[in-house]
Amino acid sequence: MKKNKSAILSAVRQFGTPSYIYDGEQLIKNYKNLKNALPDCVDVFYALKVNPNVSLVKLLRSNGACTEVCSITEMEIALKAGSTPQDIVYLGPCKKDYELKRAISLNIFAIVIESEIELKRVSAFAKEMGIVANVAIRINPDFSAEGSPWKMGGRPTHFGIEEKQAIQNFGKYLDTPDIHIRGIHVYNGTNILEAKSVFENTKYILELYETIAQKYNHEFTMIDVGGGMGIPYFQNQEELDILEFKNLMVPLFTDFNKKYPKTRIIMESGRFIIGTSGCMAVEVNNIKVNHGKTFAVTDGGTNCHSAAAGSGRVVKRNFPIENISASENALEYKYQVSGPLCSPDDIIGRNIELKEIKVEDILLVKLSGAYGPTSSPVLFHSHGYPSEILLYQGEAHLIRAKDTAEDIIDKQIVIDFKQNELILN
Amino acid sequence: MKKNKSAILSAVRQFGTPSYIYDGEQLIKNYKNLKNALPDCVDVFYALKVNPNVSLVKLLRSNGACTEVCSITEMEIALKAGSTPQDIVYLGPCKKDYELKRAISLNIFAIVIESEIELKRVSAFAKEMGIVANVAIRINPDFSAEGSPWKMGGRPTHFGIEEKQAIQNFGKYLDTPDIHIRGIHVYNGTNILEAKSVFENTKYILELYETIAQKYNHEFTMIDVGGGMGIPYFQNQEELDILEFKNLMVPLFTDFNKKYPKTRIIMESGRFIIGTSGCMAVEVNNIKVNHGKTFAVTDGGTNCHSAAAGSGRVVKRNFPIENISASENALEYKYQVSGPLCSPDDIIGRNIELKEIKVEDILLVKLSGAYGPTSSPVLFHSHGYPSEILLYQGEAHLIRAKDTAEDIIDKQIVIDFKQNELILN
Repeated sequence: MKKNKSAILSAVRQFGTPSYIYDGEQLIKNYKNLKNALPDCVDVFYALKVNPNVSLVKLLRSNGACTEVCSITEMEIALKAGSTPQDIVYLGPCKKDYELKRAISLNIFAIVIESEIELKRVSAFAKEMGIVANVAIRINPDFSAEGSPWKMGGRPTHFGIEEKQAIQNFGKYLDTPDIHIRGIHVYNGTNILEAKSVFENTKYILELYETIAQKYNHEFTMIDVGGGMGIPYFQNQEELDILEFKNLMVPLFTDFNKKYPKTRIIMESGRFIIGTSGCMAVEVNNIKVNHGKTFAVTDGGTNCHSAAAGSGRVVKRNFPIENISASENALEYKYQVSGPLCSPDDIIGRNIELKEIKVEDILLVKLSGAYGPTSSPVLFHSHGYPSEILLYQGEAHLIRAKDTAEDIIDKQIVIDFKQNELILN
Repeated sequence: MKKNKSAILSAVRQFGTPSYIYDGEQLIKNYKNLKNALPDCVDVFYALKVNPNVSLVKLLRSNGACTEVCSITEMEIALKAGSTPQDIVYLGPCKKDYELKRAISLNIFAIVIESEIELKRVSAFAKEMGIVANVAIRINPDFSAEGSPWKMGGRPTHFGIEEKQAIQNFGKYLDTPDIHIRGIHVYNGTNILEAKSVFENTKYILELYETIAQKYNHEFTMIDVGGGMGIPYFQNQEELDILEFKNLMVPLFTDFNKKYPKTRIIMESGRFIIGTSGCMAVEVNNIKVNHGKTFAVTDGGTNCHSAAAGSGRVVKRNFPIENISASENALEYKYQVSGPLCSPDDIIGRNIELKEIKVEDILLVKLSGAYGPTSSPVLFHSHGYPSEILLYQGEAHLIRAKDTAEDIIDKQIVIDFKQNELILN
């Protein structure tokens, strides 16, 4: 997020708070940064679950990104953003019948199969629809490199088919009627900051492909190696060394591509591309001293940004926060920055030094492009979804309006009860 | 939730999963249970933050409940549900200008003031609007009884004005222009299962009222003693002894009412009234064995019910879950019940014994009427808000439809970028 404060303040005053503000140029730069660190034989698939705003996806798509979706709604967003079905892969441990049928009918590049039961379901639907369904088998590997805060491989999860079982049964998968097995998918970790970890995960997955390809004497048309490239949020974390990443990944993928030129290599990325491109802007509406601590109460907390509130974390650490309304030479004080919820835990800045805060000041929570409002309880206390604003080509574009009271209430249905029977007892 | 399985299954098949199902008769019974344990001089205010569905609020309102709201949208829902402004109190640490103005113009019973700055803001708006605003002062007390998992008093929070400061400055509050101070508000804890804890909290608050009333020689027209009455979720927890509660609270409130007959006594309740009235129904779409554990993957997990997933808890404990599709004599097995998210933490039942699960079975997560979808990240992976169904008077009423892909996408705005400038580098 490199935009200047006055552009942000002006956008926020126009469209209201709480809001998420995205830097279009930074978004493109991050995407190119990753793409340029990979050989041409690798396609980057943007993971919509990280941030599904259609205008952001469109911007990435216009610059060449493909799309990885985890629900039928994400798939429709990808299409609306200009993705072709051939540049969509569809993951997720739970896919409903109507979701699978829609994906089959669109003939997307691959439905990623998460269990043997799911493979049978897709086969049955494909037969019913008279279409051969393109799928990839997701494997839960026995290995996961060190360096991810959340290791996905080598332990029981609800993702994919266990490695041993997949290798043993892959012949059966290949023989499944009305199914075209494109290849395999593995996802091994998240928010990884060490290039070597991503490299080791990828190497393991490429070898797993070879094991299966050799065992069944079959060249596939796809391998999805996941991703998990992260960004540093907290002190003492260092950003992924993209040069080291490039030096490790280019020969690895190039060699693989030489051996298996018909196999499309897919790498997924969400957080790395969009995390640093967005921030959350909140307005301070209340200030108070309470039992010796100074609270700045804002209109967006856990409900808009549960990651910044540290929801689910035992150790809560602050995202970087700045008071962009304060003058350059304002004195700094220590604050608790809270959200608007009636919960003592609704704190997005703990003991944080900020330039003196006044009512109506705008605070920015940075590094917030990934896992923002969509992974937060936006309807808690019926506050609603924040606005989303894209700063791009020198203009501020509203890309999602803040929910109004009507937006929220109109979804609810008022029942006319039979009044004569209403009062019990 | 006492409705029979066939009524639930039939409603779920009609309106789809994931869904929340509420038992109207149980809801009324819980409300009456609380109301009957309190003397007539106490008004029960239903806390909409716990569950803001307009039809549920209407059912409670038809049976006499008043409403406590925490945002302008909750206030509009209360009105739509039949509440009069005189039966609304409005709390919350962060109130926006337009929210305060709407509350002032409606002349609600009390805007609960959370800081001295907020009192000044309301005074200024009231003057501007030519209305005297009715308010109560929220006090962060020095005391909080044992027995609440989340003690609110006696520690720094972003709620209310510190007790010492409030007592000292109350004269100034009373002299604030364009303001009518109705009294005080204190909220001391949540999900309390011991009647004695609620009693001790209430006693402390009534005494605090007396201290202020005597110091300033002023009889107020309101005291809001909060609430916090809980329900047992887990093994070894026992439900609140409502008889003990009644025996403690009736004389306490009756004595207070004799001394201060003009003071409206308000007790708030959300979870106690609605918690046991609702359950979440999810459909199993995938079953697999992975590293020795059997996973049943459902269409509603953390995204629909983050409390059941234990989000934010260090120790995750299971809500009661039942497979209502299984036959009575089905064998039981041990399962991990997951949601649909691409997160290894999206588990709503850990090592839980359930009757044998097949694909398409419906599982019920019980005790889910309070803090359900509104406190969950319903838009994660763009899955959307679940359906809500009220079973009442022998009928199944849809009280909120499940979000469709169109519902979610139509909120987003597609920008037409200047194509000629789009590709950077």
